[in-house]
Amino acid sequence: MSDSITGQEIERLIQLLARLPGLGPRSARRAALHLIKKKDVLMAPLADAMVEAVENVVTCSTCGNVDTSDPCTLCTDHRRDRNTIIVVEDVSDLWALERAAVLNASYHVLGGVLSPLDGVGPEDLTISALVDRVAQGGVKEIVIAVNATVEGQTTAHYITDQLEDFTVSISRLAHGVPVGGELDYLDEGTLSAAMRSRTKF
Amino acid sequence: MSDSITGQEIERLIQLLARLPGLGPRSARRAALHLIKKKDVLMAPLADAMVEAVENVVTCSTCGNVDTSDPCTLCTDHRRDRNTIIVVEDVSDLWALERAAVLNASYHVLGGVLSPLDGVGPEDLTISALVDRVAQGGVKEIVIAVNATVEGQTTAHYITDQLEDFTVSISRLAHGVPVGGELDYLDEGTLSAAMRSRTKF
Repeated sequence: MSDSITGQEIERLIQLLARLPGLGPRSARRAALHLIKKKDVLMAPLADAMVEAVENVVTCSTCGNVDTSDPCTLCTDHRRDRNTIIVVEDVSDLWALERAAVLNASYHVLGGVLSPLDGVGPEDLTISALVDRVAQGGVKEIVIAVNATVEGQTTAHYITDQLEDFTVSISRLAHGVPVGGELDYLDEGTLSAAMRSRTKF
Repeated sequence: MSDSITGQEIERLIQLLARLPGLGPRSARRAALHLIKKKDVLMAPLADAMVEAVENVVTCSTCGNVDTSDPCTLCTDHRRDRNTIIVVEDVSDLWALERAAVLNASYHVLGGVLSPLDGVGPEDLTISALVDRVAQGGVKEIVIAVNATVEGQTTAHYITDQLEDFTVSISRLAHGVPVGGELDYLDEGTLSAAMRSRTKF
């Protein structure tokens, strides 16, 4: 769309919105128009929320979570079990595990997975910081909760190697049939993993 | 997600993003995380763009377009044909027609279509403003470019009735096969309209 149709401000808003994940050029235009129509009840508060987030949100220097304080709310929470660290790829995974409220543990955000093809090596992740946390003592269990992809599994193996010298128990998430899932739609790998790890009824 | 996991600022950002069309709760979280990760290159400029849009974007009092000036760029453009007015439901339709660059004409944004079930009557749309524009003289043709829905067609008929007393030619967009469309996938209504309006080869 040329600048002659809409003001440059609107055009710029559309272009920036289009860079959000899940929004393409067309849906960005729709979102921009929606924002303009709800200028006072949506666009102004959203702009405020962003300005505040830009100013206040920091990455926790201990676990890699994003929060408004460093160390983050999770790292300073005394009810959390600090003997167990759940290792995740990304903050979104941390959020997902917290929503499921699966384990009252601490976290460690890697910031990605090892991927030689994409040029991501161990020094690009927070693996050495994890080793430091374990070296400080007190950590009894590391749960590696990375995605079940080839890169995720490679990363899990690398971390296990790095932690070899410590007396820490290392576990990973179980493979199996998703709750509510239908066998018919599952891939062979998942099915055979679920069969191998079958549990007594 | 409870406030104990993420700061209230992040939670508020997610909730506001979820109100954008095309973003649900899950994709809003993803978008928020993306914004936080690209704080300086994306979130800060987007916040700025929104603040500017909140301050500067206005609705054109002549045609109903949104722009940074009133009357809008289109209404003040002297190269535009002011004898022809294209009537559209929404600003997004105006943008779509401008992208296609179909007709160098003026516009009139209705702000919706007549819909008794949703409680939208003629007084909720800018129909009387359109009649006023025609009454001022100089307008030779009105192209009614509303959606081909029942409500759209009802609105088109209502507008035609209102303009009965003026010597203005009223037309509507042609029905037919979309360019690149396959007959197999078209509904009977479109096919029969395309057949009725068949043109000499």
